Amino acid sequence: MTANEGFPWPDGKRAAAAITVDFDAESAMLFENPASVDYLNLMSLQWYGPRVGIFRILRVLEGRGVRGTFFVPGFTVDRWTDAVRRVHAEGHELGHHGYLHEPLYDLDERTEEEYLTRGLEAFAKAGLPAPRGFRAPKFRLTFKTPALLARHGFRYDSSLMDSDHPYALAVGPPAPAATIIELPVHWPLDDWAYYAFAPGFTPLSTIQRPESVLAAWVEELDAIADVGGCFVLTIHPFLSGRPARIRAVDRLIAHIQAREDIWLTTLGEIADHTASLELDPVVNVAPVHPYPDRLETARPATFT
Amino acid sequence: MTANEGFPWPDGKRAAAAITVDFDAESAMLFENPASVDYLNLMSLQWYGPRVGIFRILRVLEGRGVRGTFFVPGFTVDRWTDAVRRVHAEGHELGHHGYLHEPLYDLDERTEEEYLTRGLEAFAKAGLPAPRGFRAPKFRLTFKTPALLARHGFRYDSSLMDSDHPYALAVGPPAPAATIIELPVHWPLDDWAYYAFAPGFTPLSTIQRPESVLAAWVEELDAIADVGGCFVLTIHPFLSGRPARIRAVDRLIAHIQAREDIWLTTLGEIADHTASLELDPVVNVAPVHPYPDRLETARPATFT
Amino acid sequence: MTANEGFPWPDGKRAAAAITVDFDAESAMLFENPASVDYLNLMSLQWYGPRVGIFRILRVLEGRGVRGTFFVPGFTVDRWTDAVRRVHAEGHELGHHGYLHEPLYDLDERTEEEYLTRGLEAFAKAGLPAPRGFRAPKFRLTFKTPALLARHGFRYDSSLMDSDHPYALAVGPPAPAATIIELPVHWPLDDWAYYAFAPGFTPLSTIQRPESVLAAWVEELDAIADVGGCFVLTIHPFLSGRPARIRAVDRLIAHIQAREDIWLTTLGEIADHTASLELDPVVNVAPVHPYPDRLETARPATFT
Amino acid sequence: MTANEGFPWPDGKRAAAAITVDFDAESAMLFENPASVDYLNLMSLQWYGPRVGIFRILRVLEGRGVRGTFFVPGFTVDRWTDAVRRVHAEGHELGHHGYLHEPLYDLDERTEEEYLTRGLEAFAKAGLPAPRGFRAPKFRLTFKTPALLARHGFRYDSSLMDSDHPYALAVGPPAPAATIIELPVHWPLDDWAYYAFAPGFTPLSTIQRPESVLAAWVEELDAIADVGGCFVLTIHPFLSGRPARIRAVDRLIAHIQAREDIWLTTLGEIADHTASLELDPVVNVAPVHPYPDRLETARPATFT
Repeated sequence: MTANEGFPWPDGKRAAAAITVDFDAESAMLFENPASVDYLNLMSLQWYGPRVGIFRILRVLEGRGVRGTFFVPGFTVDRWTDAVRRVHAEGHELGHHGYLHEPLYDLDERTEEEYLTRGLEAFAKAGLPAPRGFRAPKFRLTFKTPALLARHGFRYDSSLMDSDHPYALAVGPPAPAATIIELPVHWPLDDWAYYAFAPGFTPLSTIQRPESVLAAWVEELDAIADVGGCFVLTIHPFLSGRPARIRAVDRLIAHIQAREDIWLTTLGEIADHTASLELDPVVNVAPVHPYPDRLETARPATFT
Repeated sequence: MTANEGFPWPDGKRAAAAITVDFDAESAMLFENPASVDYLNLMSLQWYGPRVGIFRILRVLEGRGVRGTFFVPGFTVDRWTDAVRRVHAEGHELGHHGYLHEPLYDLDERTEEEYLTRGLEAFAKAGLPAPRGFRAPKFRLTFKTPALLARHGFRYDSSLMDSDHPYALAVGPPAPAATIIELPVHWPLDDWAYYAFAPGFTPLSTIQRPESVLAAWVEELDAIADVGGCFVLTIHPFLSGRPARIRAVDRLIAHIQAREDIWLTTLGEIADHTASLELDPVVNVAPVHPYPDRLETARPATFT
Repeated sequence: MTANEGFPWPDGKRAAAAITVDFDAESAMLFENPASVDYLNLMSLQWYGPRVGIFRILRVLEGRGVRGTFFVPGFTVDRWTDAVRRVHAEGHELGHHGYLHEPLYDLDERTEEEYLTRGLEAFAKAGLPAPRGFRAPKFRLTFKTPALLARHGFRYDSSLMDSDHPYALAVGPPAPAATIIELPVHWPLDDWAYYAFAPGFTPLSTIQRPESVLAAWVEELDAIADVGGCFVLTIHPFLSGRPARIRAVDRLIAHIQAREDIWLTTLGEIADHTASLELDPVVNVAPVHPYPDRLETARPATFT
Repeated sequence: MTANEGFPWPDGKRAAAAITVDFDAESAMLFENPASVDYLNLMSLQWYGPRVGIFRILRVLEGRGVRGTFFVPGFTVDRWTDAVRRVHAEGHELGHHGYLHEPLYDLDERTEEEYLTRGLEAFAKAGLPAPRGFRAPKFRLTFKTPALLARHGFRYDSSLMDSDHPYALAVGPPAPAATIIELPVHWPLDDWAYYAFAPGFTPLSTIQRPESVLAAWVEELDAIADVGGCFVLTIHPFLSGRPARIRAVDRLIAHIQAREDIWLTTLGEIADHTASLELDPVVNVAPVHPYPDRLETARPATFT
């Protein structure tokens, strides 16, 4: 039996699921290419999120009686404050998602921390509670990040891909005194992998039909639930907030709720439950590159 | 309720739809790579539009009794004048689509205006009425463009992506004295996202079947109509004019007409109706980039 | 009515179809990156064609009683002479496909002609008849190519994309004394658009199922036949010669033959029929680029 | 009849099949970009293999009573020794897959041999038997590789794509004294072609549903079996080990076993059977590039 089976969920549930929403608005595009500040079409593509999509998602969650977890870059908090406050007011969980949706690869620790701090300040300035959870923009975090998160009081991260269920993560191999909870994700559960289409900005080359995406998600959901895992859906208001796509989200939630053996809740509650289990933490050791002479071929990760 | 629901359509209609045709011919390829003037295969791929596809589209519209809106680059007007005149003679609306299909990103205002003017001159020279509507090539316009359009007497633009229904757009935040009407588009409603395939010129990597594209469009149409929005289809004569693909367009129109609760008309009429509502204009404020030191990483948008 | 409808096919047929086979073997890869001469895996991928696929295709054509048209680069004639001779011996038509599968873009006329001549010499050296038809590698020919083809006695070309049926093509606008016949192609009828997958060499990112490809081709075939056009299928032995894919070809041919209103034959016979109609030739005039200052941004076409 | 039909399988079987597993873990990413040592998300994506996926695959093979062939880079042996030992302990075959998943293109012979040797040392150090089979990382081997494999005592390679069945391969044209057995592969039988998705590291742009992938594999399997070939499936623990995808593998194996005319076994056994047939070896002669002046345009193959 693999470690993935038999994870102890509360109340006799067999598996868990969470609807998470990455409320990026225009932040990712501005970080990737600052020239975007002048690109009205590109901005309007992203603004569909805060202007329309976020409200569609809220209504679907309300209609199904589900609380979600919304990861919000600080720039979105600053610029679309009312929409973020409304998410909070409707009882959903807010999480940290960088300040300007900065992937954390290829940075020194001080810069990583500046981005983290600037994101936290935006929440504070808007009178919103400090988030307990973090998701790295583009899921990109480094071996330095978990310790930073622990130092700033985060309870959990949701950016890694090496398990089907939550686990305790030691924040460093040298002195694993602290742990955070990791709530893993995976690309096929992210609407970006099916819908992203911004010529000149993404290399993605097709747009899938919402009905096909729903079928893919249902297939994933059932399989993850059957092994007792945690299905973490990731959607974006500017993508899944569109009329045809929100139906796929709504029908997916209906499918989850119809199963009854799945605990559908926020990442925060799943993290608290996981913490209560006092699991032995996973300790990640960064690989040592076996070819020192190839290190000079190292290069920054591309955005896409 | 989001702002998208409850848009007041005339005559008790629930939603609106428009068939728009971007009649690019060879212009986009010539702008992107001037070496294309010698590429006979590439030219012939694009010439399918003015030589065959445009007439197929006209016949389908005639068969269904539908008037469409055709956005035509000035270069197409100059080079394929008879075909453009025939579109006009059959009662369809002509719109502005640049002179040589120039995306408007990364230009100074004077160059943006030169392209606009040169396109208008082509219409005048061909004895065609000045277009009242504009669509930016590749949908790419900047925060400077709406004011230019207003100054040149345009009633509407159809290039943005931040709403499911039309709206009034203030042409600038400093002095929103003027407005134009915005009739939003979206990539999944554009045949380019499914059919574009020109190795070495597009990074697109697949060609979808017309039956799959029809299914995608019907799914989008029904969802947009159900929220009371405006379904703006964008097709290209060199793509959707092919025998198997024109059937998808024809069957989509039949599907729209069968619903009866959808007002299927030109963008010009939808713009006039929207203007008559005297809506409060949307004011777009360009984001201020929060990392001034990153501005030096700004770079021109790529064509694809 | 567009020019495409009502093309006069012989014997009361409504439409025509041809199975064409681009027998590239390793030539395209060698031209694109000469380092390929050492890449055994890449060579083996391409060698599936002359070692296995070509014979599968021959057997299917034999089983269905169909003659095809095989476009063969001179390098394939030199290196896989027996296989090419067998194609000829079984009664199929051989056509010219460059020497080393050279796309003809960005070359001076002398180089274009060298490639043409070198390909012809390979046929002569192998004792094979001089081909009457030409297909440009990657379909890439220039405004200079038709005159070259006429000067070397070619009857037809099959590389352009601006019609659904054959036509007479004037070999130049200055003195259209000569014509060749053009038998147009299109990407969705080319197996390369669905199956090509060679990481690091093609940007294509998916492999479609043969059953899906068959469905796409049947959809195209029926639509083209219904408008009285000419369906020109393009397949490659290293792609469509695989076990599951050859079935799609076989079933497509069965579908064509079951319709009875389609004339299924070689391109040479279709070209002869077209020539007999003494049609007014199409005269292609290369566009004059309207922005002389942009000509300095011209750049060679990329391979993919 | 092509050479592919009528290959003599033992015990009256019509065809053969093998489940092969490329157990890369993080090695490919580290070789391609050494900066990956710090990319925790990317590492976690790859670690799903040794932490979860490998055990799911083992359980499915055990449940179906099937022995597989696992190609393991030496770095995986060094870093995930217990998982590799378990694969061995459960009776599966281990094969060589480079040390750090090094594609063998563009290297001198000494470097090719260093990678081969370093991989062998990892097996020895872990007390595992020396592998008899080799699969080149990314299937990339050169005309120099077969002789190297023979010199180091390998019985077979499984990286080429020019046949549907095994064959004897002469290790060099100058003195074909030695042969190895080749067990060919093909991209549509590799889960990487359907599931790979790592933005910034792969150019792949879509993720297919496991049910679609299963349908593709069944279509391939049936066609290959019907021509008497050898179906070599290639899966990766970090891809096919996921809950929904492992079902596709399990159902594919059930489909193979239900046919009864297919010999489902390890590559090692298929190689031994093939060797016993004492077939005339295939001699591969590297092409001589016909345009010496183009050799200066040779460039290293890109990773993707």
